[in-house]
Amino acid sequence: MARITVAFQGARGAFSEQACKQLLGDDLSFKPFERFVDIYDALEQKKVRYAVAPIENTLAGSVHENYDHLIQYQFPIIAETRVRIVHNLIGRPGAKFGDIKRAISHPVALGQCLTFFKTNRQIRAESHYDTGGSVKTVMEGTDPTLAAIASAAAAEYYGAQILKREIEDNRENFTRFFLLTRKAPKRPAKSAGEMKTSIAFITKNSPGSLFRCMSALALRDLSLTKIESRPLKGRPWEYMFYVDFLGSPEDPRWRHAMNQLEEMTEQLAVLGCYPQAT
Amino acid sequence: MARITVAFQGARGAFSEQACKQLLGDDLSFKPFERFVDIYDALEQKKVRYAVAPIENTLAGSVHENYDHLIQYQFPIIAETRVRIVHNLIGRPGAKFGDIKRAISHPVALGQCLTFFKTNRQIRAESHYDTGGSVKTVMEGTDPTLAAIASAAAAEYYGAQILKREIEDNRENFTRFFLLTRKAPKRPAKSAGEMKTSIAFITKNSPGSLFRCMSALALRDLSLTKIESRPLKGRPWEYMFYVDFLGSPEDPRWRHAMNQLEEMTEQLAVLGCYPQAT
Repeated sequence: MARITVAFQGARGAFSEQACKQLLGDDLSFKPFERFVDIYDALEQKKVRYAVAPIENTLAGSVHENYDHLIQYQFPIIAETRVRIVHNLIGRPGAKFGDIKRAISHPVALGQCLTFFKTNRQIRAESHYDTGGSVKTVMEGTDPTLAAIASAAAAEYYGAQILKREIEDNRENFTRFFLLTRKAPKRPAKSAGEMKTSIAFITKNSPGSLFRCMSALALRDLSLTKIESRPLKGRPWEYMFYVDFLGSPEDPRWRHAMNQLEEMTEQLAVLGCYPQAT
Repeated sequence: MARITVAFQGARGAFSEQACKQLLGDDLSFKPFERFVDIYDALEQKKVRYAVAPIENTLAGSVHENYDHLIQYQFPIIAETRVRIVHNLIGRPGAKFGDIKRAISHPVALGQCLTFFKTNRQIRAESHYDTGGSVKTVMEGTDPTLAAIASAAAAEYYGAQILKREIEDNRENFTRFFLLTRKAPKRPAKSAGEMKTSIAFITKNSPGSLFRCMSALALRDLSLTKIESRPLKGRPWEYMFYVDFLGSPEDPRWRHAMNQLEEMTEQLAVLGCYPQAT
């Protein structure tokens, strides 16, 4: 039987791959791509059934580029998940922590492990194109003093050995991912969580317009879980807003709120309704 | 006469250095640091008079880490500026574009120049720790086929030559920077722009609380220029909000709005009042 195909950005063993597993289970056929836009193209061209995209990180903020693609391609969000970003020192099987002299990884990952390098001055940090790819490089060589910094999933994928777990400076490093497909199922999968809706809208260019838009939700006691403004290119004083709130179309309040938003915005897009991650 | 000292994160020739120049002029003594937290420490320990920190990027979103430091250290924001992120192919003096075989830079910069590499397949992209540092590496060597990808400022600083300008995929790549100091001047420098105020607050944990907080500004016709929510660590359903709006303490509406926000929030911090960048 054909396995479920899923596109993500990055190399095998990337944190996006872990998000795919959390969202779809383990029996997957992974299609890694170099750029975010490639995963949307793969979905459009029916090369994959699903795509998984990071949308925000607790330290680094929203990935605006993926919001742009969501609005342009109009693929519905059908689920969300959170992945804790954990960095590990990873060596060849049989390697010893005390022998490691160099650690390679993506500079962003190296920059999130500064305390580790300060307390282990015998290990030199060296940049590499990709976290998952750094494990591949370590495994392709024979150097027992070379290690990579990457996810536990990357270590597992390449058959490498974790020498030290959780070496990142900040334990509150989480990335939220969306699961996308071409057409949302009529009924979402049964879930313990409440339903969440993600919308994006452009307000009319008048004072207090966001306040009036937000009244569409507030007057109906629909709880916000995210709001973010983004200035519009070449349109000073006009903004795109990203809003997440608890609710789904089965709730009459949801439909009334959307009607009011249609009336009070210049443009409104429902990006998806999906079970809230627990 | 002693030059003005300013701390920033990154190597010489970084985009933060360009922000320093836009904010403070050319006659500066630059103090580059490895991590964001280091620039706040330098300011606290009076090693520098100013610090410059990136707060958001049009493609990558807000730099939450710097909001954390702003709230913790309580240094006032006294100015803002926007830097367009322009990537250039940079070689040694006398190098020719047609001879370049390898281009080194920070992976984030390489990832923003994918179209360039697709149309110039003779040039291989290789990762390096830093954009500015990649120019330094090119200049320290003697290889006429090696180039760096970095800002024009980095090319100038290291005496290198720009072989191709503006090779980035997206021209709408801007980063907003804040200028910080230990104590805000009583009166801001004369400016053509309106005054802007940045605040951060935590809402009380009850439905519609953000809506009530926003009424403090909306009922007084104070225009929002940014709003962003951020979940609080370990406190589900509670959020920190970042809000920018046009106004300053000289305006009575500003004081009334702050009084209402004090009443309706659990915690309120004024991060600074400063002339809006034009």
